[in-house]
Amino acid sequence: MIDRTKDLSRLNLKTGSVDMTHGAGGLASVQLIDAVFAKHFTNEWLDVGHDGALLPPITKPVAVSCDAHVVSPLFFPGGDIGRLAVAGTVNDVAMCGAKPLYITVSFILEEGFPLAKLDQIAESMAMTAKEAGVAIVTGDTKVVEKGLADGVYIVTSGIGEALSGSVINGRKAQAGDAILISGSMGDHGMAILSCRENMIFETTIESDAAPLNGMVEAVLEAAPDTHVLRDPTRGGLAATLNEIAYQSQVGMLLDEAAIVVKPEVMAACEFLGLDPLFVANEGKMIVICPQEQAQAALSAMRAHPLGHDAAIIGTVTSDGPGTVEMTTLMGGRRMVDWLNSEQLPRIC
Amino acid sequence: MIDRTKDLSRLNLKTGSVDMTHGAGGLASVQLIDAVFAKHFTNEWLDVGHDGALLPPITKPVAVSCDAHVVSPLFFPGGDIGRLAVAGTVNDVAMCGAKPLYITVSFILEEGFPLAKLDQIAESMAMTAKEAGVAIVTGDTKVVEKGLADGVYIVTSGIGEALSGSVINGRKAQAGDAILISGSMGDHGMAILSCRENMIFETTIESDAAPLNGMVEAVLEAAPDTHVLRDPTRGGLAATLNEIAYQSQVGMLLDEAAIVVKPEVMAACEFLGLDPLFVANEGKMIVICPQEQAQAALSAMRAHPLGHDAAIIGTVTSDGPGTVEMTTLMGGRRMVDWLNSEQLPRIC
Repeated sequence: MIDRTKDLSRLNLKTGSVDMTHGAGGLASVQLIDAVFAKHFTNEWLDVGHDGALLPPITKPVAVSCDAHVVSPLFFPGGDIGRLAVAGTVNDVAMCGAKPLYITVSFILEEGFPLAKLDQIAESMAMTAKEAGVAIVTGDTKVVEKGLADGVYIVTSGIGEALSGSVINGRKAQAGDAILISGSMGDHGMAILSCRENMIFETTIESDAAPLNGMVEAVLEAAPDTHVLRDPTRGGLAATLNEIAYQSQVGMLLDEAAIVVKPEVMAACEFLGLDPLFVANEGKMIVICPQEQAQAALSAMRAHPLGHDAAIIGTVTSDGPGTVEMTTLMGGRRMVDWLNSEQLPRIC
Repeated sequence: MIDRTKDLSRLNLKTGSVDMTHGAGGLASVQLIDAVFAKHFTNEWLDVGHDGALLPPITKPVAVSCDAHVVSPLFFPGGDIGRLAVAGTVNDVAMCGAKPLYITVSFILEEGFPLAKLDQIAESMAMTAKEAGVAIVTGDTKVVEKGLADGVYIVTSGIGEALSGSVINGRKAQAGDAILISGSMGDHGMAILSCRENMIFETTIESDAAPLNGMVEAVLEAAPDTHVLRDPTRGGLAATLNEIAYQSQVGMLLDEAAIVVKPEVMAACEFLGLDPLFVANEGKMIVICPQEQAQAALSAMRAHPLGHDAAIIGTVTSDGPGTVEMTTLMGGRRMVDWLNSEQLPRIC
């Protein structure tokens, strides 16, 4: 029997780094998988070691999602690219009104990337997967030459099963529905910006990156006729609501006073000239449901550890299909327009 | 209603290029998705435009796979990164003994990448998906700064349903089994190498990149007790068989005379000092099945357009678990060892 550990000296997890052989499909690739990924992600399906995984039947409608993660920097207050990748994909599945079950993960590694950091990221992914109750069942690793990536890019795909019989998506918002969000806006984006090299402000802002599937289950139990679930990631609350308004061909009227923005996030946004409604979140959800179920949905969110600051922030209207308006703190009204230009690149 | 085409001038598919706004989640992102991806990939699930897709139940065991594609160059004789991505993922699902149904796709785009090339790649993906009978149901797009990727990286994930009741994977090879391959070795790898900038030979070698799910169905019908299916991609036939021998704790004895290598591939390999058994394939499959079903499997492969050159190339043994030996053309025997060092980076 071949001793696959014989060359493991080259895989010094403390001082070693990724080289081109780790992506070439030979012994070095297998060793990297064994020493880093298989160690952290171990489960009955992954451990088979095939190029794919064979899972039990899914007898309810199947929800799938995928997400590429190119966040810079890789480590930030409140999380890292690994936590972001797993939570982001879990959330995309959950926002289909589904229970996430499985994750696939592909790594694109830059030659020279420290193995210690890769190990740390893999551990973070494993912990977030455990927190969300999902298994990382199969994966792939590629390596590109130094300079042709930025450390590591992580692409995850998620698979889950529908929680409710009704279809939940961005086309289902109806005039009269209530619009809720589960907490404060802009935390993730400002946490990332605060630690970019060219930024000069110091704050205590932490990313909100977290798996939301538990809260989705609670909301759907409390408000079973929910029409739309969505996590306001890139583009923030404003872009996400505009997308839903467009897809459902409805208008929306928001109440600025009801939208929570942490003082330190607001201060940082003002400093940088950003609108927190356009800043990404990675652990918040939008719920759009009939008015008569709005209080139940709100209570369910507030009872969840990730939803203490949940609020009803507006109403779906039949005015101006595809547009979002807001009653401002000053009592006026303004359009909350599309994000026309790039605000924050590589925020997730 | 917002006119989402109003800014489409910036999306000139002939002369335009990717910029950072296309990955920022705002209007530019939506326009890119509409003008390129939604146009080519259109189907009932993708068209919903959610961050995930909701699909019908899968009542048989579910096969999933994922693959990152970083091939260089992006366009090569016989294919491109788009065809490679779809075929590669279809094949990984098929090699679980499953029928591929759905694909998810994430793009990591380099700022400045020509939209015309992106459009061409998306079209190629759509055509390959059609050829394989799978739907591209959801996706994600990220953009990184110029220099931090190599044009485009594509990560695909595949979902399918098991074709047979028996479990097919690399741990199931048994002493006495026949080993078959569906055609000539090394075509993809040598096609890629032949068009790298620093290569000086000219050949007519084309990549074999193709979806193999049709042939898998035919083989499993003819040889229902098949133990292992695998496509010998990175690391080629040699690395793949070593991996299976290790996982199943069996030996293998191959017959070099039975392994087809095209003359032009052999010539190019000799020129570069490469062993074709270590060179990647993207449209070939290994079948390991009981001897009594080997002829039926062989006939099924040869009857398929992609399997004209199929052959029985060896036997699974109980000697030297985890090792692969070969009877050479000269009548001797040699070990077919692990690929210890990188042969061909970024071949897929």
